[in-house]
Amino acid sequence: MTEVLNPDELERRLREIGAERYHNHHPFHKLLHAGKLNRGQVQAWALNRYYYQSRIPIKDAALVSRLTDPALRREWRRRIVDHDGEAPDDGGIARWLTLTDGLGLDRACVESTRGVLPATKFAVDAYVQFVRGRSILEAIASSLTELFSAGIISERVAGMLANYSFVDEQALAYFNARLTQAPRDSEFALAYVKREARTPDQQQAVLDALVFKCDLLWAQLDALYHAYVEPGHVPPGAFVPDGVG
Amino acid sequence: MTEVLNPDELERRLREIGAERYHNHHPFHKLLHAGKLNRGQVQAWALNRYYYQSRIPIKDAALVSRLTDPALRREWRRRIVDHDGEAPDDGGIARWLTLTDGLGLDRACVESTRGVLPATKFAVDAYVQFVRGRSILEAIASSLTELFSAGIISERVAGMLANYSFVDEQALAYFNARLTQAPRDSEFALAYVKREARTPDQQQAVLDALVFKCDLLWAQLDALYHAYVEPGHVPPGAFVPDGVG
Repeated sequence: MTEVLNPDELERRLREIGAERYHNHHPFHKLLHAGKLNRGQVQAWALNRYYYQSRIPIKDAALVSRLTDPALRREWRRRIVDHDGEAPDDGGIARWLTLTDGLGLDRACVESTRGVLPATKFAVDAYVQFVRGRSILEAIASSLTELFSAGIISERVAGMLANYSFVDEQALAYFNARLTQAPRDSEFALAYVKREARTPDQQQAVLDALVFKCDLLWAQLDALYHAYVEPGHVPPGAFVPDGVG
Repeated sequence: MTEVLNPDELERRLREIGAERYHNHHPFHKLLHAGKLNRGQVQAWALNRYYYQSRIPIKDAALVSRLTDPALRREWRRRIVDHDGEAPDDGGIARWLTLTDGLGLDRACVESTRGVLPATKFAVDAYVQFVRGRSILEAIASSLTELFSAGIISERVAGMLANYSFVDEQALAYFNARLTQAPRDSEFALAYVKREARTPDQQQAVLDALVFKCDLLWAQLDALYHAYVEPGHVPPGAFVPDGVG
């Protein structure tokens, strides 16, 4: 880009990226929400997504550790609290484990992250690394996929409850909490990038950070689809659902 | 592991990992070598693998920068020379570009790494990160996939020359050079880990490093298979061969 966008135009372009590249368009999610997956495939999704969940507060703490403004640190710290909670049975990670429990996965096995697809780890670790190494502006911009999460969460909760006998409302408690947390977080981050990205280069970096984040969410679903929807492609060492050879 | 393996037993276990998990067993390679891919699919492979090639000297330089022994630095430096050469048209990366040229890919486009699958970048970047962050022993052990590369290279050269009219011997010059470089390099690395991994923890770390490396090679082929062999799964922004929608 060679000219500065006004903040609302920047927001429009960010929303355009989401409309094109957010993982709600991924075929794996369509199958998940439509009830087209079997229990083993839903297990594989939850097991792999646990790795993502487990690294989010690490990524957020990495960002907090780089912020020099106490007010900004306090704001971002809330995200760590949301995920880690105030006690072992509280917070987003604990709620994710309620889901994996409900799906019949062994908790120690889930927490060990053994069986997680290597591709999941590479994508998620790339996110942590991005937030550690890029500018604060890019690190904050990479959280902006939250702008698009309310829709996918509502679809997911409704679709999974309607279509899977092995999923109940309690198992999906994680998503209900996110329905209030995500809009609050993404509004803050959006206001931040609209205010702080003032040059064409900064604005391009913000847009690229969101593309990067969309790509890594997409790559996680590609890996799940390849391993667990296409038959015969579970990579060596990864989780094998009962009944899958 | 709880007891120390003798060096030859450690080597046996390393070779066992290769026999089970090296990517010569991957279905994408079987298709590639058997002539079952079309030109666009071979282009996608070469384009993505370029990203891997381009990061190898970066990973090797990261390791050299961590070595305190000049003799070891000299030994490892040779790998950087092998890849970067002595002039723009020399070395492994230049030879890889001869291959992508031969396949009809635009060189500037290849070098930009635009169009490379995000999953390729995540896997390759994880390798660089591993070598930057893990122990020297693990970093060196992660190079040991070279122990298994002679076989796959011979298969590949013979298979590709026999099966693809759009590939000639000059385009495959990269692999001929590797046939002498890889055994020399892997013998050195193998002797190093056999000598330096003296505790059960160190030996386990060496074995795990090789598994990690096999996983990331495998993940790259999974991503290629999913995007370019399974129809309709090219992720947003990635290379689309002519004639693929």
